[in-house]
Order: sequence, then C-alpha cells, then structure tokens
Amino acid sequence: MSQSLSQNEDTIVALATPNGVGAISVIRVSGPSAIPSVDKVFSGKKKLIDCASHTIHYGRILESGGEAIDDVLISVFSDGRSFTGEDSIEISTHGNPFIAQKIISVLLLQEIRLAEPGEFTKRAYLNGKLDLAQAEAVADVINSRTEVSLRGARNQLDGILSKKIDSLREQLIHTSSLIELELDFAEEDIHFMSLQEIVRNIDEIIEEIEALLKTFSFGKVIRDGVNVALVGPPNAGKSSLLNYFLKEAGTTRDIIREDLFIDGIMFRLFDTAGIRATEDAVEKEGVLRSRNALKEADIVLFLNDTTVGFSEHLYSEILELNQSDRIVRVANKVDITRPEPDKYDVQISAKTGVGMQSLFEKLKAVALGSSTYTERTAIVSNIRHYDSLNKANEHLKSAKESINKRLTGEFISVDLRNAENDLGEIVGKITSDDILNNIFSKFCIGK
Amino acid sequence: MSQSLSQNEDTIVALATPNGVGAISVIRVSGPSAIPSVDKVFSGKKKLIDCASHTIHYGRILESGGEAIDDVLISVFSDGRSFTGEDSIEISTHGNPFIAQKIISVLLLQEIRLAEPGEFTKRAYLNGKLDLAQAEAVADVINSRTEVSLRGARNQLDGILSKKIDSLREQLIHTSSLIELELDFAEEDIHFMSLQEIVRNIDEIIEEIEALLKTFSFGKVIRDGVNVALVGPPNAGKSSLLNYFLKEAGTTRDIIREDLFIDGIMFRLFDTAGIRATEDAVEKEGVLRSRNALKEADIVLFLNDTTVGFSEHLYSEILELNQSDRIVRVANKVDITRPEPDKYDVQISAKTGVGMQSLFEKLKAVALGSSTYTERTAIVSNIRHYDSLNKANEHLKSAKESINKRLTGEFISVDLRNAENDLGEIVGKITSDDILNNIFSKFCIGK
Repeated sequence: MSQSLSQNEDTIVALATPNGVGAISVIRVSGPSAIPSVDKVFSGKKKLIDCASHTIHYGRILESGGEAIDDVLISVFSDGRSFTGEDSIEISTHGNPFIAQKIISVLLLQEIRLAEPGEFTKRAYLNGKLDLAQAEAVADVINSRTEVSLRGARNQLDGILSKKIDSLREQLIHTSSLIELELDFAEEDIHFMSLQEIVRNIDEIIEEIEALLKTFSFGKVIRDGVNVALVGPPNAGKSSLLNYFLKEAGTTRDIIREDLFIDGIMFRLFDTAGIRATEDAVEKEGVLRSRNALKEADIVLFLNDTTVGFSEHLYSEILELNQSDRIVRVANKVDITRPEPDKYDVQISAKTGVGMQSLFEKLKAVALGSSTYTERTAIVSNIRHYDSLNKANEHLKSAKESINKRLTGEFISVDLRNAENDLGEIVGKITSDDILNNIFSKFCIGK
Repeated sequence: MSQSLSQNEDTIVALATPNGVGAISVIRVSGPSAIPSVDKVFSGKKKLIDCASHTIHYGRILESGGEAIDDVLISVFSDGRSFTGEDSIEISTHGNPFIAQKIISVLLLQEIRLAEPGEFTKRAYLNGKLDLAQAEAVADVINSRTEVSLRGARNQLDGILSKKIDSLREQLIHTSSLIELELDFAEEDIHFMSLQEIVRNIDEIIEEIEALLKTFSFGKVIRDGVNVALVGPPNAGKSSLLNYFLKEAGTTRDIIREDLFIDGIMFRLFDTAGIRATEDAVEKEGVLRSRNALKEADIVLFLNDTTVGFSEHLYSEILELNQSDRIVRVANKVDITRPEPDKYDVQISAKTGVGMQSLFEKLKAVALGSSTYTERTAIVSNIRHYDSLNKANEHLKSAKESINKRLTGEFISVDLRNAENDLGEIVGKITSDDILNNIFSKFCIGK
C-alpha cells in the first residue's frame, strides 16, 4: 500500500458529471493543495483558503492571460471534511464539455494532475472514510438500473455486509488468541478444554460464512440481473413472446437481447437460434453461440407449441447443457389447444396474454430460489467477496482438520490467520495494490 | 408577462447535469417552497430551513416509506441569492440517472413540478438577474464548441451588447422627450432649433445601429461557425483534401460533414455530389441537395485539378448559385503541374500538404471579412437581435422622413417609440410571452 499512500500527496482533478451538454457540469479537485491551487485561478470576493468548509462562493475561473473562462460556483470542503477525507473543491460551471475541459487544463498548470479512474473513491477508502466493500458499493450504486439492484448496492454501501464480516473477523481473532494461549501454555494441561471451545467457535464461523455464501445466488441476481436463454422448436412462438414483452411489459430491446423487468429484477432475454448439429459453416457458428448461451443461462425458457406437442428431443438436448431446475418448460398457444399438463411448468398464450403473470412469477421464483432476505440482511453480491468467503471457509475447514489430526497449534494458527486475511480482504483491512488497482480501475474517472 | 409572473409562484425541479452515468448528478430545485419542500424528504443533522444561504449539508433523501434513496450533499441558496433570484436547492447525488429519476419523483409528490426547458434562466430574467440578451447568451455559452464562440457568448453574457443597446435606448428616450417638449410648446417659436437637434440625434443613433448591424456577419461566424461547400470536377481530389483535414488538422467527421477548426473558428465542410442536370431520379435528388448546399454555403471551396486545368464550365454554374467573393478557387495537385496563377486564389497539394496554411488563411479571411473587433466590442450574433436592430433602423429612418415631410410631432413620436420598443425587445425591457416562450423553449431542461 506504500505506493497508494504516496499517490495521496498529489492533488487530483476530474470532471465529476457525465460528459455532455447540460445546465451545469461539476469539476472535482481533491488533495493537499486543492484549495490554494484553485485559489490561483479563481477570482471572487474572498480567497477560498479563507472560506469555511461546506460553503459556496461565486466567482470566475481565469485563464493564464487573465481572461475569464466561465463564472462558477465553488464549494469548499476543508479540514478533510469531504468524500475523500482530503481538502476538496467542487467547481460548478455552465454545462459545456468545452468549458470543463478548459478549466481542467488551467488547473493542470497548477500542482494538480488528472485523476485516475476511481481515484476519489480509492482515497476515501485509503483515508478510512469507507471500507473496501463500501467503496465497491459506490460503483454498484452508480450502475444500478433497477429498484432491487439499487437497494442491494445501498445495503452494501451502508456497511451491512462489512459489519457482518468485521464481526466474523473478531470471532476469528478471539479464537486465534485462544490458540496462542494454548501455544504459550503447551506444557500445562488445559489442552482439551480449549480445543473443544476452538472447534465450537470455528464451526460457528463456518456456519455463518456458509449462510453468507448462500446469499450469493440472490445477490448476483439483484446486482447483475438474470440471463434467460429463450429456446424452442421453429414456430413455437418465440417472436410472439418477445413482442408481447416489448409491447406489454415495458421491455427494452437491442440487437441481441431484450431486458425485461419483473418486480425490479432485470431479466436479460437472449433469443437463441437452432442448437441442432449442422454442416453449414455460418449455421455452425450460430449453433455454437446458441449452445453457449444455453450453457451459461441462469434460466432456460423452453417454449413449446402445444398444437404440435412437447418437444422431447429438444428437451433432452437442453438437459445436456443446463440443470433441470433452471429450465422453465412453457406451453404456448394454449388459446388453441389444451396441453398435456404434467409436461409443463407454465401454460401461456403469447397471442392473448393468458398465463403471462404465472410465467413472470415462475421466472422470479427460479431466479431467487427460496431466499427470504430482508433489507437489513447482509448479502454477498460481488464475486470477489464470494471468492474470499470461499477461501476463508476452506482455511477454516483445514484448521478443523489439523485439530482432528492433533497437529500442533502452529498448524491451526496458520489456517486461522489465513481465514482472517481472507475476510480482511473483503473489507480492505488486508489488501494488495494489485487488488486495489483492479477494483478502482473499473470505476469511471471523476468518481 | 402576467402568465410568466404567475408561473413564478410554482417551485420547479429538474436534473441539471447531463443525463448519463457519472460520479455525481445534480438536481436543481427553485421557487418559493424549494427549501421547505426538500426538507420534507431530507434527513440530515439540521433542517435546511435553518441553514444559512450558500452552505452545504450532508444527509439522505428518503422515499415516502422512509427508505433512503441516496446519500446526498445539499446546497442551500436562500433569500433569493441564487441564479434564478429565488430560493433554490441543489442536490448532489451519486451519478446514476435511475437515482436522479427516483429523487425527482419523490420531489414531485411535494409542492414541486417539473421545470420547462430554460425555465430556470427564464426566472433569472423575470427576476432581473439577467436581461434577455444575457439570458440568451447562457444558451450560447453552453453550446459553444470553440474558443472563439465561447468568448463571443461570454461577451454577451457579460452584458457588453446589452450596455450598448441600453445606451442607444436612453439616447432615443432623450430625443423623444425633445419631441414631446415640441408638442407641448407647439404654439411657440422654438420649432426649428429642436428639429435640427432631433435629426442630429436620430442620425447618430442610426449610425451606431448600422455599425452594430455590420458586426452580425462576424458575430454569426463566431457563434455558429461557417458552412463550407466543397465542390469540384471528378478527380479534383476532394477526398484527398478531406482526408488531409481529418489526419493533419484534427477535423472531426460524421456521415454528412467534417468540422475543421481554424484559430478557434468552426468550418463545417459539406462534400457535394455532382451539380449537373441528370435524368436519373436518385441522382436528381443528389444534384438538388448539392445545389442547395452551394446556394446556402457561407463559402464555396471550389477545387480544381491543375493537371486538367481550371473548370470554367463548373465555375460559371457555381456563380449562378453563390457570390463570387464567397467562392475560393483552389488549384490542387500543384506538386505535379504548375497552375495558371491568375485563375486561382490558393494553390495546394492535398497529397503533400503544400499551400494548406494559405488555404486556412484564405478561408478565415473570407469568413471574417475586414472585421477588427476586440474582446470588449459589442457584437450582434443572434438573428433575433439583428432583426430588432433592423426594425429599429427602419423606424428611425421613417421618423426622419416624417421630419423632412414636415409632418406633425405625433408622427415622429410614434416612430421613435417603435424604435425604442425594438431596442427594448433585445434586452427584454419590452417582450411578449410568445417571444419569451420561443427563446426559452430552445434551452435544455434544467437550465
């Protein structure tokens, strides 16, 4: 982290609002020289350095020649009372990218450099304003497209997950201290008692970690949405179904997919071409892509034409690509023919709209599983956190194995410390520069 | 203006930053209930109503159910010390359009409605914070894409034109008062002396108005840029020239045009297809479009292949469509053959880049004419102002005619008052709702 800390001595600048024409743009400056450096190009009633934190000042940003670039409102955040925990300035200008660019150029002539992606949030983390899981949630909050994903991201930004992880780490540290006690007093006969307590503690932590791991399928759904592959024999009515979604369910469509929102959860519908083996090169490519879509789908929506009957052959092919509990078997055209009921999960008519509500409910049920999480439950939605929890779990299990094998305390201790580090990685207590750079490089510049 | 004033009793809200994903978005609220209404959905340390103007407060915007939508920074502008001259609030949120939309929805449940396009600036005008020419300059400042157009717009926003117009209006009012004196004392024998003074005054004002009218060709160039139609016989090297601009001169290209910047002035290059009469329906359409482009171009860049010679026939066709002093005759391929010098304004090789600087200088010279305006000169760049100045000029000339015809003072007085109103329209001293609506409807929402 030494590199990251030394970066902190720089003062950085970036456009904080989306690039484009609007009423106003905001330029953000943060770092030790933020206020005096902006003062050098600002002309107002007072020097900014003499202004209280959290106050707003009207004036002009001047070019090197003294000409005004724009009249601006400047917000002053001093004594580190800012998002980043450093002295910061926000410059609100007329919403013209050309003006923002000119003002940034003028600031770059001062002791200020351009911010890297996510650098403001990274500084907030390095200065202890947010832990790492919260910092990651900032990006999720910005990218949320649905009610449900926004709630999930806010839950994480509010620190619900972090608090849970912190408490698990504390339990681990407590257990480790018992082991260390054990090592210190290895000669004496308190061995058996503490071992029992240690195993009980580890089991409790494993149980809680496994509960957290289980939330991931739900967390992933609310954060990233659900990929649905739409498949069926020719004339099963795939286009009618997609058209129904588009017209009746407020779906948005682009070239390769439609986004359907059911109770704030995003379902990405991928239409698949045929999956039958073929000799034609172009078709072969399409078949390959369809098979991949089916393999990677969270849900396979398998559409059948009831006037023809359930397509057993196609179903067995799909079963080779995905799990049966992920396949929703749908009977279409029930306005014409009654289907064999036990073959299907849902019966619809894409033409009349019959059964659509059941289809939505079924998609939601498959996506969410049996999860019953509330607003205040810690939920894992980030694959990085999931991986760290898995690693912690493995280390804890290995610790238990060492105990069972009656290995010495040092073996157990190493595993517990590893598990502690795995959890520490989630909230950023223990994190390498590589992990940090990887996380923040995915942010936009200005955040 | 009664309608406009009554609108002012409403409190309005809009997204002020460009719509899109970024680090932050800003929502602007203005009107009498801005502060108490935002207070109803804000949860922070203090009530906003108790906060001083120009201070910033951290807190959360809550949904009707009490759930937090986002944590925000709120800027308070009270006692009318804001852009609009009304109480205003700016809400800085995470830069997610979905969040902004949710917060705006929550505010619309209070005594707040969505702002119309330009309504914030319109209120600034109605509340006397800006005159109308300055309000119009706000849109120009936002839309400026070059150094030169930004300077021009700032010049107008700073009130340079407005001051000039105000002083001309004062001179007119003074002259009118002389006439009214004349009417009052019509019996007495002071007639001849004041008439002379009145004519002298009117002549002075006409002179100044005509000087302003002359700045319009320059003002239009700096505000809107210059349309250049590129025309030439086949193989004259049009694509080579366009490619040269694209690669060497930082031109931007879209489907139908390229934008070339020379010393901060924007030249829009339109490539024209053939202009010869044809029987083919598709070609006919193209020819018609090309002829229109040539007719409407500020400059015609007429490119010739010197290895073939000056295309006299095409030149005479172009002369039917545009003025000769607007046509820049260019000899291309001078790296291969020397051209007949008296046929051309500029000699270049699009291949080697020879002569390009002279071409740029020539384009600039034709665009700007002999104008020598400085930063602090009043410049007319808006067609509405140009039209009003023209009308004022005509009314003044008609007043002079009435004097020459020895018509009674009432005739002269009516014309002077009309001219006064024409000038008043520019700065918005006298303006109909229609004009106002027309002006502000072209603004973006949030400004």
